[in-house]
Amino acid sequence: MDASPTAAARRAAAIAATMRRIGYLTRRGVFRGWLTEPGPDAELRKLALLECLGVYDHSLAIKVGVHFFLWGGAVKFLGTKRHHDKWLLDTENYVIKGCFAMTELGHGSNVRGIETVATYDSKTGEFVINTPCESAQKYWIGGAANHATHTIVFAQLHINGRNEGVHAFIAQIRDQDENVLPNIHIADCGHKIGLNGVDNGRIWFNNIRVPRENLLNLVADVLPDGKYVSMIDNPDQRFAAFLSPLTLGRVNIAVNAVYISKVGLAIAVRYALSRRAFSITPDGPEMLLLDYPSHQRRLLPLLAKVCMMSSASNFMKNMYVKRTPEISKAIHVYSSALKATLTWQNMTTLQECREACGGQGLKTENRVGIFKAEFDVQSTFEGDNNVLLQQVSKALYAEFLTTQRKKKSFKGLGLEHLNGPCPVIPHSLTSDILRSSKFQMDLFCLRERDLLKQFAEEVARHLAQGESREKALMLSYQIAEDLARAFTERTILQIFLEDEMNAPAGSLKDVLGLLRSMYVMVCIDESASFLRYGYLSRNNVTTVRKEVMILCSELRPHALAIVGSFGIPDAFLSPLAFDWIEANARSSGRE
Amino acid sequence: MDASPTAAARRAAAIAATMRRIGYLTRRGVFRGWLTEPGPDAELRKLALLECLGVYDHSLAIKVGVHFFLWGGAVKFLGTKRHHDKWLLDTENYVIKGCFAMTELGHGSNVRGIETVATYDSKTGEFVINTPCESAQKYWIGGAANHATHTIVFAQLHINGRNEGVHAFIAQIRDQDENVLPNIHIADCGHKIGLNGVDNGRIWFNNIRVPRENLLNLVADVLPDGKYVSMIDNPDQRFAAFLSPLTLGRVNIAVNAVYISKVGLAIAVRYALSRRAFSITPDGPEMLLLDYPSHQRRLLPLLAKVCMMSSASNFMKNMYVKRTPEISKAIHVYSSALKATLTWQNMTTLQECREACGGQGLKTENRVGIFKAEFDVQSTFEGDNNVLLQQVSKALYAEFLTTQRKKKSFKGLGLEHLNGPCPVIPHSLTSDILRSSKFQMDLFCLRERDLLKQFAEEVARHLAQGESREKALMLSYQIAEDLARAFTERTILQIFLEDEMNAPAGSLKDVLGLLRSMYVMVCIDESASFLRYGYLSRNNVTTVRKEVMILCSELRPHALAIVGSFGIPDAFLSPLAFDWIEANARSSGRE
Repeated sequence: MDASPTAAARRAAAIAATMRRIGYLTRRGVFRGWLTEPGPDAELRKLALLECLGVYDHSLAIKVGVHFFLWGGAVKFLGTKRHHDKWLLDTENYVIKGCFAMTELGHGSNVRGIETVATYDSKTGEFVINTPCESAQKYWIGGAANHATHTIVFAQLHINGRNEGVHAFIAQIRDQDENVLPNIHIADCGHKIGLNGVDNGRIWFNNIRVPRENLLNLVADVLPDGKYVSMIDNPDQRFAAFLSPLTLGRVNIAVNAVYISKVGLAIAVRYALSRRAFSITPDGPEMLLLDYPSHQRRLLPLLAKVCMMSSASNFMKNMYVKRTPEISKAIHVYSSALKATLTWQNMTTLQECREACGGQGLKTENRVGIFKAEFDVQSTFEGDNNVLLQQVSKALYAEFLTTQRKKKSFKGLGLEHLNGPCPVIPHSLTSDILRSSKFQMDLFCLRERDLLKQFAEEVARHLAQGESREKALMLSYQIAEDLARAFTERTILQIFLEDEMNAPAGSLKDVLGLLRSMYVMVCIDESASFLRYGYLSRNNVTTVRKEVMILCSELRPHALAIVGSFGIPDAFLSPLAFDWIEANARSSGRE
Repeated sequence: MDASPTAAARRAAAIAATMRRIGYLTRRGVFRGWLTEPGPDAELRKLALLECLGVYDHSLAIKVGVHFFLWGGAVKFLGTKRHHDKWLLDTENYVIKGCFAMTELGHGSNVRGIETVATYDSKTGEFVINTPCESAQKYWIGGAANHATHTIVFAQLHINGRNEGVHAFIAQIRDQDENVLPNIHIADCGHKIGLNGVDNGRIWFNNIRVPRENLLNLVADVLPDGKYVSMIDNPDQRFAAFLSPLTLGRVNIAVNAVYISKVGLAIAVRYALSRRAFSITPDGPEMLLLDYPSHQRRLLPLLAKVCMMSSASNFMKNMYVKRTPEISKAIHVYSSALKATLTWQNMTTLQECREACGGQGLKTENRVGIFKAEFDVQSTFEGDNNVLLQQVSKALYAEFLTTQRKKKSFKGLGLEHLNGPCPVIPHSLTSDILRSSKFQMDLFCLRERDLLKQFAEEVARHLAQGESREKALMLSYQIAEDLARAFTERTILQIFLEDEMNAPAGSLKDVLGLLRSMYVMVCIDESASFLRYGYLSRNNVTTVRKEVMILCSELRPHALAIVGSFGIPDAFLSPLAFDWIEANARSSGRE
């Protein structure tokens, strides 16, 4: 059924291309300072470059990201001076190539369930790392199949028969000539629907030995005699610390998703401004696609959403690079909510853009279609989106319980609005009211407040019936989903409003206002929740739907300027975004 | 950005594989009688084989479909005895290879706008076929790039300076040695996100000449002296006749979409019954994915929908093979509604199945992910889904106007319910009422009736404001979409109910009832329209949402049996549907 005899050759070529590109960037000194230069500005610079790489070639960005942010990040943030001295500079110079072996065949989202074991041998002062069964094979390890010389291994730490939980170790897996080391077995994960320029691999460890010093020991250490010491007593918190390198991954993914949506929309909008179909007058000229109200309804709300989400992802990135321990919970919640929401929205956007481009959307050279396969992975890697949104609701619920128990005010996560009185929505909504930021925030805050209360009540009901806390949360998944969405949409609106306020009065600010109102109106129009929970009346929802159509016609003249403002270089768009008839001409020599 | 130097080699290999498979099937006599054996049974047999081919290899099915159903169908159903005698048997034996040149670079859905010209030369008794400009190049022509020897050409027929509209002609484009004939230029459409085993091509005609007899002349003909004669006076009806070969295409696409969803769901459900993640008790075993209520909510409604849609697509197929002129309009409306709805639903299903399989869903060998790219084309080929649904609403509106004007009853399209009194929905809904087919049909009929009325009113309002009929319809797109969905969902329910009634009482019938109720409940839960238009109260919608959860738990024990009932051979599933740990074992030799 897989008809491709050359699949192996083709993957090899793609993987080689990725390495060539990394080599080129390394020689140009692009990565200099990436792990050694301190400060938020240096961090923002490297993230900006990673974003450009992602628009150019997703495989390249992922392979670079795994090496610097997962391997390098783990060494830097979970390790201590001995690890930094030994590995950071070589990593920066790509003298060694790192990967990150967390996921196993049998365990993805539930990292705590991994089965790889690292047993401490106090006689030799070494950890013995072993893959005890087939489901424990490390899986999807980016860079492992062909190139990586070193890896972070996540394993259950066993000392004297006691399991201290998941810890991270450094292991060398290949020598400098790229020969796999003894007692390590590596296999390819095989052909995937996208990211074939990344050599995802599987790793089995057959009782390999690594020195005690290879434990990344920032939060916990093993003394030579086998005594286990940790500065974090709570095993849950200790475990969470080991997952921290994934946070930047989530931030990067969310930002990247927004860029890809922008490319997709730039292509689809430009095509809709050059492609004509049907005429509504007899023998009249055919109409431009974007002059059809229905085509506007397909693309322009997506345009508004991506602008709002762009603001949110920039906010998230800035929050991350200025991180402090105090805001680590907020970063976790925001990055989870935005990673899930922005990646799903990206897939929705690409699908609509592909269909809006008709058959041309299927041509690989036109990018939109192939992006779907390349970026599909985003919804499940570095945290399954469904699981992440459940974590958001759980965190909000925990916050709710804490404020109740300690009779404190809400602080952080933008939940301060819950300290004030419940907002009141006007009975009858005019266009002016609908477009006012006060009404929009009031409505979104009202929804979030009510859903948080309802969620807490539903969980309490299950607890009262004798269910465990975990089961009670599990049974309340419907309202948890609504709550997480309400939180995310309110957050995105709130962040955008701050950006909008900072814009000088004038036509730019006016367009930002249109985009914001479009965002809020389609959030209402596309969700049953405002009617379901009674935040809006039927009449008001009807008014909202009409407003969406009006906003479409008001945004229509700005569509080209908006996709232009994304600043995507022409070379990153595609033939379809320009003179596609000329590009398809016989004389173009491209046939 | 396209990193694949071997793309051309790989497409060539895939295209060659498709031809090899066709050759194999031809030698085995599989296609014998496909164009010459009469009757519905013969037709059903060949459709059944085409469906199997589609599950095995989409490219193979499409290439076979283009040759037999588009080329062969056009010769058979638009041509007359002289064409049948000359081409049908050679087509059946694959002695000649046919393609179907309708779409142009500049014209897809709007076939009437094509620019290729066929000018009659009465001096020689030939048509001169020409591509007057680059946007007129034939595009996406399946089979054209490498193999086709003959094509149907759709062109504007010019006689003595007068344009008689779009007609279909037969032209030879390659000789028997596969050399392109003089004055014909052919180029490849390039790499696509799927269907790369089909050699889609572009064709330019430089004043080639075909004999007068090559006009497919069932509905219209040109006499030797250039006189144009047609048995259909109305140009709209004549044009519609030329599009009729596409109808079977739509039927095939809808049926195929259902099969692919079944394969995807069989894989995802079986995986969810073997994959565990997280435990809800401390140190307890991890739970099967399908025991999570949220995972049930993701997959089981899709399972219910595919069962319902399977019924509908079988109904459609049987209706098609027993077609008569009287039901041709019904066939057009049903096939448009079902093609659009079933193909979109297939993409939704595949996306959810892919994510429900986590990273494994991305591996090519596990099929689910790659299906997304292979079948994405279905939503825009042989009629863009959005355009098709607009046509459905337009047809319903026309029907409405006719009954009003002629004071007739509704007949056909299942609209008979509009002749009776408006159904009344009980004020308070219990589980028993929700699951009764009477309530379910009443609710869907009520919605359809009301939306048809609202649509007619909105169009009338625009007409009263002086808009043209076309513009009035265009401006009413929001309600048109809701109406088309209401029509389709009611149709699917109604068809399924007939199948369900024919099942003997017992456990099978009980499961069919569960699937039907699940279908109706999720249709309500996922759409704002029942609340928006006031067909259900907030309380009732809340009850429906609870019922979805209950139905999930009731269907859960039957999930494996239901996917088993699809009868997909094991070889058509994937490693993920079986012992995927064993399939990934080192010892499997597959690494």
